[in-house]
Amino acid sequence: MNMSVPVDQPLVLLSKSNPVFCCYLFWSSLLIIKMLLMSLLTARQRIKTKTFANPEDLRMGRTPEVRFNDANVERMRRAHRNDLENVLPFLLMSLAYVASNPHPLTAKMLIRIGASARLLHTIVYACIPLPQPTRALSFFITFGIVIFEAFYVLICAIKYI
Amino acid sequence: MNMSVPVDQPLVLLSKSNPVFCCYLFWSSLLIIKMLLMSLLTARQRIKTKTFANPEDLRMGRTPEVRFNDANVERMRRAHRNDLENVLPFLLMSLAYVASNPHPLTAKMLIRIGASARLLHTIVYACIPLPQPTRALSFFITFGIVIFEAFYVLICAIKYI
Amino acid sequence: MNMSVPVDQPLVLLSKSNPVFCCYLFWSSLLIIKMLLMSLLTARQRIKTKTFANPEDLRMGRTPEVRFNDANVERMRRAHRNDLENVLPFLLMSLAYVASNPHPLTAKMLIRIGASARLLHTIVYACIPLPQPTRALSFFITFGIVIFEAFYVLICAIKYI
Repeated sequence: MNMSVPVDQPLVLLSKSNPVFCCYLFWSSLLIIKMLLMSLLTARQRIKTKTFANPEDLRMGRTPEVRFNDANVERMRRAHRNDLENVLPFLLMSLAYVASNPHPLTAKMLIRIGASARLLHTIVYACIPLPQPTRALSFFITFGIVIFEAFYVLICAIKYI
Repeated sequence: MNMSVPVDQPLVLLSKSNPVFCCYLFWSSLLIIKMLLMSLLTARQRIKTKTFANPEDLRMGRTPEVRFNDANVERMRRAHRNDLENVLPFLLMSLAYVASNPHPLTAKMLIRIGASARLLHTIVYACIPLPQPTRALSFFITFGIVIFEAFYVLICAIKYI
Repeated sequence: MNMSVPVDQPLVLLSKSNPVFCCYLFWSSLLIIKMLLMSLLTARQRIKTKTFANPEDLRMGRTPEVRFNDANVERMRRAHRNDLENVLPFLLMSLAYVASNPHPLTAKMLIRIGASARLLHTIVYACIPLPQPTRALSFFITFGIVIFEAFYVLICAIKYI
């Protein structure tokens, strides 16, 4: 008797045995590190321009009063908020997409391109402000990928509406 | 020898073989598309009212200076932020809830109602501002569902505290 | 013939049979409840200080006009936004970390400490403003844990780049 006869076991898509999920793990970790670094970039601008929003932070910066609306701080905050609006949906949507058993190569390319475009977006928004449409372009690459993934999953799961 | 003797295989809840998870996939995709569309609605208001927050965007809008605090743009931004505060927790919480093996019919109804209420919330906040309590009501439906799901999961997993 | 011969079945990490995942379920539910409560704390401040941002909300508060920039409301909004920037990445990153099959005891401790630090952060930010560096400390505990988890997953999944 040979127990190595393959028992028909469904592939668990959200597990380390699925290379597409591993690719997702890699790029989502990178994006999350990038997102967290935005907090540090904002803090650096706050200290440099002495713009503190909370009374209890003033002593640390040796400043007499709270301040808002510094242009450099606000730029970082807009870039960070743009991440919340786009990176988090990208991470959640790509997870759902991987769970829908897409074509492995397509899925891996979409995850890589979508994540790289967001890295580029941060560079041209928060680090070296470049003339448009650089930022708009990097924004719409990830935007388009999330929309594509969403429609793929919608069609896959339409009968469970 | 008959290999079709059933091997006791645990149901993988976060997989396409679970109809509740498929229902989650469908509605979460729909909500993510809706969330991304908020960016376009904000951009449309920015272009219409010539309210650009970044100096490098001015050339695209042919405007001389950056502007903030336009009432229409700010309404879209509040609606979008409300989505971040509520849709993303709804998506993460529902995923945890599906993984806790809830009653299938209850779970599917909660996901459908919670997602539909958020679609309604966007319509009455960002598209056709309706008198209160329409917005408050649609807000609290999803709010209540997330709280219910959270307590369900808390009780399920209490011994792993 | 003995069918109880163990068939080599991979442990499904994102399932209730994994105690680390159960621990994640518990603490993520707690954090999501906490995040949702921020909306109620903001609403309470809005009603107390009669600071409503939408014209359609004025009738509920019996106030003649929209108002912005109330210090108490803004503090709640900053605390809430800080949650979006840190709790949501913590939840997504910890999920990816659990799926990477970390050492169970380490993983459970990181989840417990990271989640508890965020609960503390909210208390000292939104409830009882304490002098720094209390808030900074609780912020950086979770921050450091997310970075650690991210690098763990990056290294695990590096060959799927």
